[in-house]
Amino acid sequence: MSATSAPGDGGTAEAAPAGFFRSRWVSPPPDLEQLDPSVLAPGFRAAGVACGLKGAGETDVGVLLCSTERVDSALALTANASAAAPVRLCRDECDAAAIRAIAVNSGNANASTGDQGYRDAVQMRDAAADALGVARRAVAIAETGTIGVPLKADALVGGVRDAAAALSDHGGVDFARSIMTTDREPKQCAVRVCGVTLSAQAKGAGMIEPGFATMLCFVQTDAVVQEPDAALRSALAGSMERITVDGQMSTNDTVLLQATGAADRPLPEGLLDAVLLQLALEIAADGEGATRVARIQVREARDDAEAERVARAIGNSPLVKTALFGRDPNWGRIAQAAGQALAGEELEELGPDRIDATELGAETAEPELSVALGRGQGAAHLYFSDLTYDYVRINAEYTT
Amino acid sequence: MSATSAPGDGGTAEAAPAGFFRSRWVSPPPDLEQLDPSVLAPGFRAAGVACGLKGAGETDVGVLLCSTERVDSALALTANASAAAPVRLCRDECDAAAIRAIAVNSGNANASTGDQGYRDAVQMRDAAADALGVARRAVAIAETGTIGVPLKADALVGGVRDAAAALSDHGGVDFARSIMTTDREPKQCAVRVCGVTLSAQAKGAGMIEPGFATMLCFVQTDAVVQEPDAALRSALAGSMERITVDGQMSTNDTVLLQATGAADRPLPEGLLDAVLLQLALEIAADGEGATRVARIQVREARDDAEAERVARAIGNSPLVKTALFGRDPNWGRIAQAAGQALAGEELEELGPDRIDATELGAETAEPELSVALGRGQGAAHLYFSDLTYDYVRINAEYTT
Repeated sequence: MSATSAPGDGGTAEAAPAGFFRSRWVSPPPDLEQLDPSVLAPGFRAAGVACGLKGAGETDVGVLLCSTERVDSALALTANASAAAPVRLCRDECDAAAIRAIAVNSGNANASTGDQGYRDAVQMRDAAADALGVARRAVAIAETGTIGVPLKADALVGGVRDAAAALSDHGGVDFARSIMTTDREPKQCAVRVCGVTLSAQAKGAGMIEPGFATMLCFVQTDAVVQEPDAALRSALAGSMERITVDGQMSTNDTVLLQATGAADRPLPEGLLDAVLLQLALEIAADGEGATRVARIQVREARDDAEAERVARAIGNSPLVKTALFGRDPNWGRIAQAAGQALAGEELEELGPDRIDATELGAETAEPELSVALGRGQGAAHLYFSDLTYDYVRINAEYTT
Repeated sequence: MSATSAPGDGGTAEAAPAGFFRSRWVSPPPDLEQLDPSVLAPGFRAAGVACGLKGAGETDVGVLLCSTERVDSALALTANASAAAPVRLCRDECDAAAIRAIAVNSGNANASTGDQGYRDAVQMRDAAADALGVARRAVAIAETGTIGVPLKADALVGGVRDAAAALSDHGGVDFARSIMTTDREPKQCAVRVCGVTLSAQAKGAGMIEPGFATMLCFVQTDAVVQEPDAALRSALAGSMERITVDGQMSTNDTVLLQATGAADRPLPEGLLDAVLLQLALEIAADGEGATRVARIQVREARDDAEAERVARAIGNSPLVKTALFGRDPNWGRIAQAAGQALAGEELEELGPDRIDATELGAETAEPELSVALGRGQGAAHLYFSDLTYDYVRINAEYTT
């Protein structure tokens, strides 16, 4: 992963960034060193093991622990009104500002599972707290996978204990694997810059239009983060909140930032934003069936909220998404989607002078699209993946 | 089309209605006679011919004329802010309550075509008015097809004149063919009941989530319709406004009701509703790539508007639509979509006791789904088609 150069896309003047930061849209701080991706920030250990939820010996349960007593944390949870049991338990009982440990599983989202599901979530959390010797309110849990299926709680509790016994300061990749569902690859990074280290793991794939978080994302650092909640919300606003795969807000979205402060230095400006944006783009690029990700920029809206509404209408339009897949520079579909978002209002006609969809039809790796509404100064952008045969196959042929 | 019995779906106690009214969800008035579908209501003549917009000699331009001077009409047009030139021209210049003639074409939507597109629409309308000897304000036009492509106006004007010269009281099917785009079959009917006749033609296929109308739909009758606008709005609210194919509001939606009153009798109660609902269901069933149509009923919402919001979130969810295609009784995706529509609100967990998705997984022809939110007395329903490989193929491989 370190220092391999990404293929040029031929479409931009800037040099393509190397390694983890592959996207043309991400600007990491200068002089950043990329570490082995299994490395965790100092003070953190993690593990991922198999407990039979996904079958075939696949890694499906993980634990991550901050070994220092001091930790500043921030937790973002889905706004979905059908939130899963682990999300509700975290809301009910976690001390979100001081979370030391997290237990995770894939294969079962423990969502729409009733009172039994909530009791199973409590049992999972208690097993992690006991095995790690950490107070219950300092343990978060996150689950992802099928909705509405009873959890194999005994297997999961056994898995949590096995993972707690296997903690390692090189457990980042195993931990990232333990949260994969229809993801093609684990998503994680470890970077060092200005004397601080930051590691992060995420997963995505389907049901991706985060309200303020994506499916699951965990970030650890030894930097000092004075206001972790504000730092996380701000970074999420420019990353996870700017992607859509299928317009579907998950029942399980969870993002956790943990900072020990042991390095006695602040997080370099822009680092958290760059890491979360690259992870968000990887989630979009690895969206179910996705073959490419575009950015739509909406300008000249009455205000930013209107621009946002138009950007989401375009990025979630199945007609625009199939055009992205089919390399069809079909700007008429962008005009239609924008017009739907502004239904009933006066709008100057959106012709090719106002819509740039050229890269939609080209083989550009990360096509850049734009529309100027001619109504004011509001702006917004959104990254979205394409709608492909494989999206239909994955979601029609398998229960996910 | 007359009196052929539809195959039973094995899922309902009621006998399947015969002929045009194939759906279990449509209740036409009793003692209804189905006429040859090419027949038009007395006083109306129509034609469809080829002028080269679609190529390969396909019927792509049509004209329909009410020969009596007296006609009461109602016109519904898309709310899309990127409305096409023909829609804007109708808004600007039509006397919506007294429309005698309509000229239509397929192959080019004349949308996002700038000032030239508007001038082309005027030219088309004027050609029809002149050829038919009807005042310009009594002529509506409607176009459907590709967005953002200049219209071959000369060919179209020639086609309008040819069609005007070919008018026939058996022109219903040719006229219906002249508005087809990705539709698999023309959609029309002619019925007689209680001494009045009603004929109708429609088209759909893609970009279908009408704001108050579908792509194109024309209805003619010799009945007396006292308040055509109210009658049309009410019938649309229960039909065209209750379907979605891909959640995309068209730039060109147009519905026209014309009533001569020559039969000196009122429209039988429920007839217009039944005809428009069956046409709406045919549009959904013939949605791009669609293999089946389901009905979602949302009950126990705080109010009808909330139920409507939840129904649209479910009917437009690509995860629910692929489950409909894959015969996957995946009620968890219904819980997720409902939870997204109610994001940030308190909601009792939606388990299998509140969601009935059994028919999603069965081979039932018209699966019936329901969700009870447990929040109040509000209700709404929506008909939606599935998301299939063919939807992706049609929209990725061709410019539409």
